[in-house]
Amino acid sequence: MRKIYLIIGVHNHQPVGNFPFVFEEAYQKAYLPFLTVLEKHPRIKITLHYSGVLIKWIEENHFPFLEKVKKLIETGQVELMSGGFYEPVLSVIPDRDKLGQIKMLTEYIEKKFGYSPKGIWLAERIWEPHLPKTIFEAGLEYTVLDESHFIYAGLEERDIFGYYLTEEQGKSINLFPISKALRYLIPFKAPEEAISYLKAIAQKKEGEIAVIADDGEKFGIWPGTHKWVYKEKWLDNFFSLLEENRDWIELLTFSECLSRFYPKKLIYLPTASYEEMMEWVLPYSTGEKYEEMTQWLSSQNKSGPYKRFFKGGFFRNYFFKYPEANLMHKKMLYVSQKVEKAVQTSQKLGKRAQDELWKGQCNCAYWHGVFGGLYLGHLRASVYEHLIRAEKIADKIFHPEKTWIKEEVQDLDKDGRNEILLSNDLLNLYIDPQDGGCLWELDYKLKEINLLNTLTRRPETYHHKIRERIGKSKVEKEGIPSIHELSVVKQKNLATILHYDWYKRASLLDHFLASSTTREDFRKCRYAEKGDFVNQPYAFTIKEKKTQLGVELKRKGGIWVGEKFLPLEVKRVIWIGEGSSNIKVGYELFNPGEEELFFWFGVEFNPFFLDPDAVTIKWEKNSYGKKMKLSTFSSLSGIEKIRLEDHAQKVSLSFSFSQAVDIWQFPLETVSQSESGFEKSYQGSILLPQLKFRLKRKNSWGMNISLEINSLKNRRGEDEKIR
Amino acid sequence: MRKIYLIIGVHNHQPVGNFPFVFEEAYQKAYLPFLTVLEKHPRIKITLHYSGVLIKWIEENHFPFLEKVKKLIETGQVELMSGGFYEPVLSVIPDRDKLGQIKMLTEYIEKKFGYSPKGIWLAERIWEPHLPKTIFEAGLEYTVLDESHFIYAGLEERDIFGYYLTEEQGKSINLFPISKALRYLIPFKAPEEAISYLKAIAQKKEGEIAVIADDGEKFGIWPGTHKWVYKEKWLDNFFSLLEENRDWIELLTFSECLSRFYPKKLIYLPTASYEEMMEWVLPYSTGEKYEEMTQWLSSQNKSGPYKRFFKGGFFRNYFFKYPEANLMHKKMLYVSQKVEKAVQTSQKLGKRAQDELWKGQCNCAYWHGVFGGLYLGHLRASVYEHLIRAEKIADKIFHPEKTWIKEEVQDLDKDGRNEILLSNDLLNLYIDPQDGGCLWELDYKLKEINLLNTLTRRPETYHHKIRERIGKSKVEKEGIPSIHELSVVKQKNLATILHYDWYKRASLLDHFLASSTTREDFRKCRYAEKGDFVNQPYAFTIKEKKTQLGVELKRKGGIWVGEKFLPLEVKRVIWIGEGSSNIKVGYELFNPGEEELFFWFGVEFNPFFLDPDAVTIKWEKNSYGKKMKLSTFSSLSGIEKIRLEDHAQKVSLSFSFSQAVDIWQFPLETVSQSESGFEKSYQGSILLPQLKFRLKRKNSWGMNISLEINSLKNRRGEDEKIR
Repeated sequence: MRKIYLIIGVHNHQPVGNFPFVFEEAYQKAYLPFLTVLEKHPRIKITLHYSGVLIKWIEENHFPFLEKVKKLIETGQVELMSGGFYEPVLSVIPDRDKLGQIKMLTEYIEKKFGYSPKGIWLAERIWEPHLPKTIFEAGLEYTVLDESHFIYAGLEERDIFGYYLTEEQGKSINLFPISKALRYLIPFKAPEEAISYLKAIAQKKEGEIAVIADDGEKFGIWPGTHKWVYKEKWLDNFFSLLEENRDWIELLTFSECLSRFYPKKLIYLPTASYEEMMEWVLPYSTGEKYEEMTQWLSSQNKSGPYKRFFKGGFFRNYFFKYPEANLMHKKMLYVSQKVEKAVQTSQKLGKRAQDELWKGQCNCAYWHGVFGGLYLGHLRASVYEHLIRAEKIADKIFHPEKTWIKEEVQDLDKDGRNEILLSNDLLNLYIDPQDGGCLWELDYKLKEINLLNTLTRRPETYHHKIRERIGKSKVEKEGIPSIHELSVVKQKNLATILHYDWYKRASLLDHFLASSTTREDFRKCRYAEKGDFVNQPYAFTIKEKKTQLGVELKRKGGIWVGEKFLPLEVKRVIWIGEGSSNIKVGYELFNPGEEELFFWFGVEFNPFFLDPDAVTIKWEKNSYGKKMKLSTFSSLSGIEKIRLEDHAQKVSLSFSFSQAVDIWQFPLETVSQSESGFEKSYQGSILLPQLKFRLKRKNSWGMNISLEINSLKNRRGEDEKIR
Repeated sequence: MRKIYLIIGVHNHQPVGNFPFVFEEAYQKAYLPFLTVLEKHPRIKITLHYSGVLIKWIEENHFPFLEKVKKLIETGQVELMSGGFYEPVLSVIPDRDKLGQIKMLTEYIEKKFGYSPKGIWLAERIWEPHLPKTIFEAGLEYTVLDESHFIYAGLEERDIFGYYLTEEQGKSINLFPISKALRYLIPFKAPEEAISYLKAIAQKKEGEIAVIADDGEKFGIWPGTHKWVYKEKWLDNFFSLLEENRDWIELLTFSECLSRFYPKKLIYLPTASYEEMMEWVLPYSTGEKYEEMTQWLSSQNKSGPYKRFFKGGFFRNYFFKYPEANLMHKKMLYVSQKVEKAVQTSQKLGKRAQDELWKGQCNCAYWHGVFGGLYLGHLRASVYEHLIRAEKIADKIFHPEKTWIKEEVQDLDKDGRNEILLSNDLLNLYIDPQDGGCLWELDYKLKEINLLNTLTRRPETYHHKIRERIGKSKVEKEGIPSIHELSVVKQKNLATILHYDWYKRASLLDHFLASSTTREDFRKCRYAEKGDFVNQPYAFTIKEKKTQLGVELKRKGGIWVGEKFLPLEVKRVIWIGEGSSNIKVGYELFNPGEEELFFWFGVEFNPFFLDPDAVTIKWEKNSYGKKMKLSTFSSLSGIEKIRLEDHAQKVSLSFSFSQAVDIWQFPLETVSQSESGFEKSYQGSILLPQLKFRLKRKNSWGMNISLEINSLKNRRGEDEKIR
């Protein structure tokens, strides 16, 4: 029998900000049983990676687990890998954070397990060719990537065994290619199939080294896997088979392999990830063509030989595809700069700020593939929570005074145009003059919430599957479907909520509606916009008076009246003051033309709530006498004051209007794919205060809107403490 | 008429180490006439890039040209771009060198032209996503890439106008996509065709910004272009047409465009270059499949829609494809580290060393596409010359003593195994124990020559064209063929020299030939190797005695005798001494077996000469009494001493053998593609000293080889001075 070496790697991670019950379930259904089965097979060697987030949670909640791992390390059954502590995509965070996050996990492992890790798990195997320098400088020697990375570099499929070397500026690290075949076999097909595959490889060439490394969640959390892997004993059987065949299958850890064998060759890998990731990141229209092309190639039986030359997109373009991901990322870069200065100024506060920043770099919310990611509001909220907290801690150094106020004009989102950041001790307001003069982020610092953490609805390449209602989960004869084969529609009538927005669902958007517009039209974003204000450029001026700062936004635009486009000027000044969480918006509409104009004017707000069912509204023409759940509210008339109380995040938003308005409200909902199928998600609550009026030629009309943000009192009537 | 903006960029460069007559010809046939035509059209605006190498040569040889450029800058007709001074591929050199080389050209431009450049020309448009940081830190704002870079990022063809923004760690630069269509039209088709193309673009959308930027050598040096562009007035006509159509074609420079228009979007580009480059870099067998796939795709009429998803390789893998490119690159990295230390120790010597290092980073010799590049021995020699000189200057700091000797054991070529560098004040010997214990680089420091700058013969995807004798140059009706369409066979019978080597043509390779082997078999590398030594691992030990250092290389291998593989041990000690340019190699062959062995033993040397026709040999059994040209020498018998005198590089190689040997000699020749067609190149001179003898069981046999390297005396009988 010809010999083969096998390295098994398992990566375990839960996002920062995920619900504790999800951590617990994952622990009980996957991480713990996996280790329990492993303990029963002392001949099985495995290399494990736990992200810092996860291992710290386990330490705090299931300490004995760490003892188990330590024992397995001591008996040589387990090797541990390092990584960025909070599982960031290394290539998109600043160098100092790359190095810092790796060192943090390495030191944690050294401290808790008395063991120096030699390898790094790269989140989502996102590779860029300059990374070896950082990895080398962090004292690590190897990483694990997909075979696709190597195929894209020009290798043949027969070369995807053993390991390679790469370097950046002379700093070398070792690279192990993961077998895609094994990644789809384990644990989804019968254990014997993986063994047969290994046999086939061994028969081709003696002494090959095969690598399987993938997410630990496949062993118990992905749909159907807990039953399959543990109750039906897939893992136990697989390990037993490996033991039975140990005369020709020799298990290695990565480090053992490094010390026993030479690398194959020096190779350089282009920017890449696993195939699926590179497909997901393609912009919608390109993604559709890619899918069409893949199907055609397959219909021509050319997938085998030619697929290797086909390549999807580039990870960083999630920031191109999803503006919300970009805005989070650019805020992260902005905060990272502040934190860098903070660390230089005050070690103690700086380090605290740094830890929060690093939590805010956790990759999961920044992208979307077969997992929810960006579509999961609570993960986005967690990113904002940690970034705002990092900033708050750093600001304590830079603004030792109790109250302060400040404006910054710079290219905050890196689109080549300037935006405005108005901030004080309580609030951050991010305003984009070029894009409808909108307010896209509103941070309430006491609660570390971005109240405008809203996601715009966009088409996804997989949406056609929902419309066609094709694709149901099917359990195959031998094994269970892998995530990539699943397409379950989890809720009914999902197709009816598939609407797309033609503008970014930010706030303070100036609408002029056609008289026929219904709330339903507006919800579907299929209505006649009469003005040209929503996503168009506004000129801006920074204003100052005493302890207040303001931004005046002004656009000379127009509105359609029948076939005529008549001039109209919208001016809006947004004010905030020191020590205040009140935002005042003064509107002035001017009709410079010769004809009287009739308006249906609305100002759109898009707040996001962590749990919209925990939000109640109170309203009155003049007080807050009435009350209902947000979800039951679709429209109200003649409102001068309305308050939204979020009992989950303990925060209230109180709007006052200088003139009575009607208000429409509806939830912004998306359909996205997830591990378990297509699902509906809440992405924000649209509020459209609106009123109809006439404006005579050369006349102005004005209105003031005030938005006050407050912490909800706790049971003892106190504000909840700031963390 | 709808308006279009056009930016024309021209990049001019000649490699460090190119022949002065080539610079002069390029100047007279392209750079000068281009500017002369430009001066006649004051309405034409152009952005020019001259590499530092080239502009310094022009300054020294045609100073008034600089005055012309300066005037054109002052009138606003010309904008200049910066770049790496000696035109390195930025992504493959250390960060300090990246920044230093850019600043050097920027400062040169500021000094000579009183003008601060804003853009950077990236050599061969080799892009990696971390470059914006360096470019930003060098004070530059934009670069110019190919549309393919943007298509690979996921954009559509309609998006390849205007410019984009990208960032790394928050540091932004602007990116202009070059139109591939214009790159193939200009100047190869009639000027009207480019105008029609622009018209078609303008008709689709008002106000688009189109960019053409390409090599200036297309305007006068590429085959047929001088006649076409100047004598037949292509350029004059093109400029006139642009002037005539200035009501709808507005010319801009890149900087003007930046100041007048916003970027389109933030985008991230994966590792890429122009399409052709990414095809050229593919390893041979993958490259063949890529070609086949491209043809098939085209036969299915799917090139248009699907080509965008096809992607070749990654530039850095020229170091994977060509070990010689890798060895130059890794030596460059090694020298760069030395130079970094030198700069820290002595500003003056350090800066001199740095300038030489940077010259040695010039990209041209490190790769091969449609241009000669790596296949041009004189360009490789130039890289070695500058790197050796840089090292020599740095060594003056680290070794102030007159003579010294030193060994280093480290992974010099970054293959994960250790190699040995033996060096003294006169020589560097690079020895690879793992690869036949070979000597792959031998630097003679007095003349700054790597005597083993030899290129191994390998298959190239285009070789089948030579065998099939297909493809002749054809001048089309309107215009001239672009380089990419040319495939001229420049010499006859090229197919007969297409032989490939199964091992690296290094030196001190131990051969055991079959008795039937002919010199012709050996030349074709199709002979029976009876031993297992040529490319197999040798164990090594460093030896020391007094002022000498040695490496003992030992392999317990074997040889085939009939059907039997019998054991044989080869031991070889290589010695060098302080202050000496003599290399002594002591051989010991031991027959541990029970049978007497008969050998045909040869030790292969592969020196490279800049001009093999300038080499004469002198030989005698015991003296140097006889003399002939190297090229007329194919085999000699009973030689104890032989001297090769290289009158071009003023260096001699004197071999002495302790036993009389026969010697075969023949040139190593390759066929490679170049701008003007397929051409034969000399890549080294193979010398195989050999002898036949018997070795009884349990007996040893020994031989000593001495190789002495000396400078040839000049006419006055003196050694030529060290530069």
